[in-house]
Amino acid sequence: MPSITTNGLAAIEPGGLLEPISYELGDLNANEIIIDVEYCGICHSDLSMVDNDWGISQYPLVPGHEVIGKISAVGTGVNHLNIGDSVGLGWHCGYCNECECCKSGDQNLCATAQPTIVGHHGGFADKVKADANSVVVIPEGVDLATAGPLMCAGITVFNPMIQFGVSSTDRVGVIGIGGLGHLAVKFLSAWGCEVTAFTSSEDKKNEAVSFGANHTLNSLDAEAIEQAANSFDYLISTVNVKLDWNQYVNTLKPKGTMVFVGATLDPLDLGVMPLILGQRTIAGSTVGSPAVMDQMLQFASRHQISPLVEQFAMSAANSAMNHLRDGKPKYRVVLANN
Amino acid sequence: MPSITTNGLAAIEPGGLLEPISYELGDLNANEIIIDVEYCGICHSDLSMVDNDWGISQYPLVPGHEVIGKISAVGTGVNHLNIGDSVGLGWHCGYCNECECCKSGDQNLCATAQPTIVGHHGGFADKVKADANSVVVIPEGVDLATAGPLMCAGITVFNPMIQFGVSSTDRVGVIGIGGLGHLAVKFLSAWGCEVTAFTSSEDKKNEAVSFGANHTLNSLDAEAIEQAANSFDYLISTVNVKLDWNQYVNTLKPKGTMVFVGATLDPLDLGVMPLILGQRTIAGSTVGSPAVMDQMLQFASRHQISPLVEQFAMSAANSAMNHLRDGKPKYRVVLANN
Repeated sequence: MPSITTNGLAAIEPGGLLEPISYELGDLNANEIIIDVEYCGICHSDLSMVDNDWGISQYPLVPGHEVIGKISAVGTGVNHLNIGDSVGLGWHCGYCNECECCKSGDQNLCATAQPTIVGHHGGFADKVKADANSVVVIPEGVDLATAGPLMCAGITVFNPMIQFGVSSTDRVGVIGIGGLGHLAVKFLSAWGCEVTAFTSSEDKKNEAVSFGANHTLNSLDAEAIEQAANSFDYLISTVNVKLDWNQYVNTLKPKGTMVFVGATLDPLDLGVMPLILGQRTIAGSTVGSPAVMDQMLQFASRHQISPLVEQFAMSAANSAMNHLRDGKPKYRVVLANN
Repeated sequence: MPSITTNGLAAIEPGGLLEPISYELGDLNANEIIIDVEYCGICHSDLSMVDNDWGISQYPLVPGHEVIGKISAVGTGVNHLNIGDSVGLGWHCGYCNECECCKSGDQNLCATAQPTIVGHHGGFADKVKADANSVVVIPEGVDLATAGPLMCAGITVFNPMIQFGVSSTDRVGVIGIGGLGHLAVKFLSAWGCEVTAFTSSEDKKNEAVSFGANHTLNSLDAEAIEQAANSFDYLISTVNVKLDWNQYVNTLKPKGTMVFVGATLDPLDLGVMPLILGQRTIAGSTVGSPAVMDQMLQFASRHQISPLVEQFAMSAANSAMNHLRDGKPKYRVVLANN
């Protein structure tokens, strides 16, 4: 099959506005597919990549790793997907398929996984190419127009529930009620947990309750947090700012686990004794494997869970990115191709 | 039953030498037993308690929480133990039996558990009183003369293997080869793991291999540790000094877990990204429940695992304590009552 040309929106230099470009998708290998993009969510890491915050960006850079679309081409070795299938693509568009992680079904931890927007053009485009085993089929009952953010924000908060064995009888705190946190509250509520939303915003308190939170707690109120000592089986932190983590550790019950899915650059400064004496655990988690993405989508379909999104036209991508830069989205932004 | 008098060795003031004292054990409640002490291990925390390092010591203070002896009296409500049974007693000599931890079989995490040597007289004595459900029966095949250190050092390193699911196929690193570490190597080797001993001592390297370590690694050789990146499923740290923990985290494989059983007073200063990107876990663990102590003893009996001990007479307890203060024991000290 000859290489296909597509149109996309790219930052040409660090921090630059997105500009229309055309580019070749390259040869379609036997294990690859092409997705005609219908919707693409915007994640804060798209901003970070445009701005080269992590020093790994390559330009022109086409952002977008919360892709929803229909398959328009399949490689000769792809048997489980067909042209016309509705699929989603997240942070990774390919895996080595050979390492211990890949063989164990933990492809999201593959050291040489191909990120969708690092040295590869993402979903702010008409078409995206991906390895067939990196995409997931969108099941019946999941709204395509709002599904994009499940591919990154959603799987990021759903994965620790699977990996660290959150149980329906657990009391779980969600720290930070934004794009990730609002989905965490929805998932955990449907999971059957007793959910506490930690937020410093009055508006978000009420919204968190509407998402299913049983309780809210002011994340900046040291006294309230102290009173919550020994309360939680799990904490999931979605924030990227430094909080008083030792105070949060103290809100964990014995054997409790705090999972970081939001990255703070400051070291954690954790005392060891509260971990030892309470057999407590601190962990991290990043996106999820294709199998866990499938589980998430089935769960979202069964419980009618969808992100709360604001939709912009793909052509208004720069406005949408600025909206995100200003920290205004409630709770996630999706770009729509016509 | 009238209160029983016993003789013990007590520190009368912080840092004081141990002196002979007599004291009443008090009424024997229905759920209690009395142990006639045959052997008692010395743990570094006995020194810390004598010195009031943690500000919780009460004087006169009778140390000793690695007690091995025979039951000489049982309360009227005790049905599962009999006079003459050989039992062991560790850090806790009683639990509340009512809290969530106790009801869940995690008595070692009970917030109001009674420590054997805090406000209670320990095993440097002729007799010790304890709640019947805090002691464990020593099974056939476990040498009473060396079993004492299993009650604290042993269970401290065995418990995380149970709690955090160490598998026989795992590669496990043990940081620090002392009283705790040498038992960790023995347990993990018998468990079927591939064991690496981290130690800075040349002598201990060879000894660690004799305990069953497959590999040794110099814990102060930054380059060697860097080369061990992504190697270990588990690390168990027994040291109480500050190491470059971020470097150790990097030696964990994806999904790897580092468990602290040794307490460092400095905060951990951990970067978040290596936890997130590798789905890594940091945890703590403290002693173990009676059920896990039973499992440990059965395992030790089946695999003929015993601590390497130096025996002193109970009357030479001060010499033994000084030997420990000097950091000289290989690898654990036991006091013997004639």
